[in-house]
Amino acid sequence: MTAPLHEAHPAGPGRALPDTQQGMRRRNLARVMHTVSAEGPLSRAAVASRIGLTRAAVSTLVDELIRSGLLEELGPERPGRVGRPGSALAVSGRGPAGIGAEVGVDHLAVCAVDLRGEIRARAVRHGVNRGRSPEPVLAELTALVRQVVAEADAEGLWPAGLAVAVPGLVARDGRTVVRAPNLDWHDTDLGALLPAELPPTVDNEANFGGLAELWLGQTTPRDFLHVSAEIGIGAAVVVDGGLLRGTRGFAGELGHVPVWPDGPECACGGRGCLEQYAGEEAVLRAAGLEPGADRVGLLATRAADGDEAVRRALHDAGTALGIALTGAVNLLDPQLVVLGGALSGLAPWLLPSLEAELARRTAGPPCPVSVSQLGPEGPLLGAAHSVVRAVLDDPAAVAERTGATATERTVDIVAEQA
Amino acid sequence: MTAPLHEAHPAGPGRALPDTQQGMRRRNLARVMHTVSAEGPLSRAAVASRIGLTRAAVSTLVDELIRSGLLEELGPERPGRVGRPGSALAVSGRGPAGIGAEVGVDHLAVCAVDLRGEIRARAVRHGVNRGRSPEPVLAELTALVRQVVAEADAEGLWPAGLAVAVPGLVARDGRTVVRAPNLDWHDTDLGALLPAELPPTVDNEANFGGLAELWLGQTTPRDFLHVSAEIGIGAAVVVDGGLLRGTRGFAGELGHVPVWPDGPECACGGRGCLEQYAGEEAVLRAAGLEPGADRVGLLATRAADGDEAVRRALHDAGTALGIALTGAVNLLDPQLVVLGGALSGLAPWLLPSLEAELARRTAGPPCPVSVSQLGPEGPLLGAAHSVVRAVLDDPAAVAERTGATATERTVDIVAEQA
Repeated sequence: MTAPLHEAHPAGPGRALPDTQQGMRRRNLARVMHTVSAEGPLSRAAVASRIGLTRAAVSTLVDELIRSGLLEELGPERPGRVGRPGSALAVSGRGPAGIGAEVGVDHLAVCAVDLRGEIRARAVRHGVNRGRSPEPVLAELTALVRQVVAEADAEGLWPAGLAVAVPGLVARDGRTVVRAPNLDWHDTDLGALLPAELPPTVDNEANFGGLAELWLGQTTPRDFLHVSAEIGIGAAVVVDGGLLRGTRGFAGELGHVPVWPDGPECACGGRGCLEQYAGEEAVLRAAGLEPGADRVGLLATRAADGDEAVRRALHDAGTALGIALTGAVNLLDPQLVVLGGALSGLAPWLLPSLEAELARRTAGPPCPVSVSQLGPEGPLLGAAHSVVRAVLDDPAAVAERTGATATERTVDIVAEQA
Repeated sequence: MTAPLHEAHPAGPGRALPDTQQGMRRRNLARVMHTVSAEGPLSRAAVASRIGLTRAAVSTLVDELIRSGLLEELGPERPGRVGRPGSALAVSGRGPAGIGAEVGVDHLAVCAVDLRGEIRARAVRHGVNRGRSPEPVLAELTALVRQVVAEADAEGLWPAGLAVAVPGLVARDGRTVVRAPNLDWHDTDLGALLPAELPPTVDNEANFGGLAELWLGQTTPRDFLHVSAEIGIGAAVVVDGGLLRGTRGFAGELGHVPVWPDGPECACGGRGCLEQYAGEEAVLRAAGLEPGADRVGLLATRAADGDEAVRRALHDAGTALGIALTGAVNLLDPQLVVLGGALSGLAPWLLPSLEAELARRTAGPPCPVSVSQLGPEGPLLGAAHSVVRAVLDDPAAVAERTGATATERTVDIVAEQA
C-alpha cells in the first residue's frame, strides 16, 4: 500500500514513491509518523505492533525520525506496565510547520500549524479584495506570511511549505488561478507573486475546506461531499479519503449544476445554476437586502430575528441546494453531505427545506446532512494541515532537506534551522 | 505503488497486498505481467528496462510466471538486433480465462476471454427476463456458464473467475442485487444462485461497460463518464483509471439526476429525473410507440427512416441528457463523456441537442462527447476482462491456486488442469 491518498498536492510524494527497498523504507517511515501522530505517545514496541513490523525495524526507523527532528522522546513510560519500560515517542512540537494562507473576498489570513496539529501563529487582515489586482493583494499576503513565519521561528519552528486557499478554479499545476470570478482574477500565476523562498501550493477554498473536514472533523467518514460558500458555492468531493480533482482540477463546481434549467442566466454561461438560487448574493437579492461586507452575518442576524423575507429566501435557497444535492448524491453516493464555510452559519434556516427535498426525491433513506464545526476557518486550517500531512506522508523528504539521512550532522542542522 | 486501481472487485487483490518483501515480489510479478500484456512480445531485457528492475530480478520473476503457465516463450527473437538474442515472452493463450456473464432484460450472455484478451467461447440466449423470478433465470445462466467453461476447457483454458453484469444496483459485497427495477428483482443474493464452484463477482452493467471502455477503447482517457442505457440510464464514473463506486456501491445513478425538478414522478421517489425524459420507455412513449422487444432497434430504424415523431423524441432526450450531463461535468470535471450501451446506436439523433446543451451551459470549451465502439457488448466484455485484469494484477494468486510457487510440480499441475 502507498501512503494515504489524502494529500492536497496533486503530485504529492505519497504516490510517486518507487517500489524498491528505498521506497519501502520511505513508506515505513511514513507509517511510523502517522501512527505516532494518530495514537501517540507510544513506545517503540507499541508502534511495532500497530504497523506489523519487527521492533528492531521500527527502532531503526524511529532513530532516523528522531535525528530528523520529527519525533521526540518523552522519557521513560510510567511503571506499572508489563515488561521493561520503554521511552514514549511523540510527534515533535518543534521542527517543520505547515503555513496555511487564505485569500478571501473580504480578508487575508495566514497561520502556522505544527506537526501536532496545533496553531502556533496567525495573522489576519480585513479589507475588500474584490476588484483589486492580484499584485498588491499578494504583496500584503506575503507580508503576513513573513510575519507568521517569524513568529513560528521564535517558537522553534521552520516552514515546511506554504499552501494557499483561493475562491476560484485552480489548475492542476497547483499555482495558477484560472478563474476567480468573485475576485475578478483570471489566469493568475500565484506562484510568481508569492515568496520565492517558499513556493506555494494553491488550491480552491472548497477543496481545502473539505480536507480540513476530513482531517479535523470528529466523525467525518472517508466518503463525503463538503459544500461551502464564500460568494460562490463550491464543493469538495472526497472519495475514500482523497479529493476528487477532475481532469483540469475543476471538479466540485456544485454552484453551476443546473437546478431549474430555464432559470436566470449565470456568469458561467448556463441558466438556472444553483448559484442563481443559493449563492449569497442571490439570497440577499431575494430577501431585498443590499450586499455589504458581512453578508452571512447579516443574513444570520436577520433570520434569527425572525425576518420573514430573509427566512423565505433561505428556505428557497435550501430547496435549490436540496435539488442540486439530489443529483450529486445520485452520481457520487457519498456517506454524508457536510455544510461548511459560510453555509454552516446559515444551516438552521437552510436545512429544513434542503433535507425535505433530499428526502422526497429519494426512494430509500436519504443521504444524511451535517454541519461543519470548523465554520469559515476550514479552508485556512485545511491549507496549513495539507503541508503537515505532506510531511507525515513522506518524512524522508524532510530528512533529506535537512541533510539528515544516515549522518550525525542532522541534530546540529535541525538545531541551527530552528 | 500498488497495482493499478482499475480492478472490478471492490476488495480486489491489488490494494490489499502488504508492504513487505513478499508484497513487493507480488507487485513486481504484476508489473511484469502488465508490461508483457500491454507491449509483448518482449525479451527479458526489454521487460527489465521497461519496469526499472535488474535483468536478473526480472528473470526470476519471469521464470515463476512461466512455471505458473501465465507467460510463455515464443523462442529466440529474430536476429539483426544488437546483443545476444533473447527469447521473446508473451502472455499465455492457455491457462486462466475470465468468464463474463450478463443478465439483460431481454437476453442472457456468457463469454470466456483469455489472458491475451481474445474471446475464446461464447453463448447467448434471447428471451424476456423481466418479471421472471431470479431462480430460473440464474439456472439458465448457470447452464450457459457451464457450456462456455466446457468449450474453453477444450481449448486448454480454465476459469479464473466469473463476473456477472446486471441492470441494477449491486451492494459493495459484489454479490447482492439490491434493486433491479427493470427485472423486478430486489435484495437478491446472486452468489447463492450461481455455480458454487465458481463464486461470481456481480456488478452493475454500467460499471462493467465503463471498465470495458477503459480497457478496450482505443483512445479512452483515464478520467471519463460512461453513460449507458438498457431500459434505465446508468453511468460509470471512471477517475484516474478506477471506478468510483460510492459508499453503498450505488454511484453513477445519472438516470435519477433531476432535470426539470417539477416534472413527472419517477419510480425512484423523485420528480423530473433524467430517466423520465431519456429512458428508452420514455422516448418510445414520447414518439407514440409501444415498448416491444427490440426497443433501440425500433427507434434507430424509425429515426433513420426519417420518422419525425421519433426524431423529435430523441432530440428532446438529447436535451435532457445534456442538462443532466452539464451537472455531472461540473461536479466531476471528466476529460470525456462516452455514450455507450444502447445509447451508442441512437447517438446520431441524440448528439446534436446533447452537445448543444452542454455547449450553451459552459463558459469555456465544453466537455467532448464520444460514442463507444463496443456498443451493447460492453458490459459482457467488461465483466470477462475484469477477471483477466485481476489475474494480471496479482498473478501470484493464480500461482498459489495452482500450487506453483517455487516448486517444479507446477508445470504438471497446470498441464493437468488444462
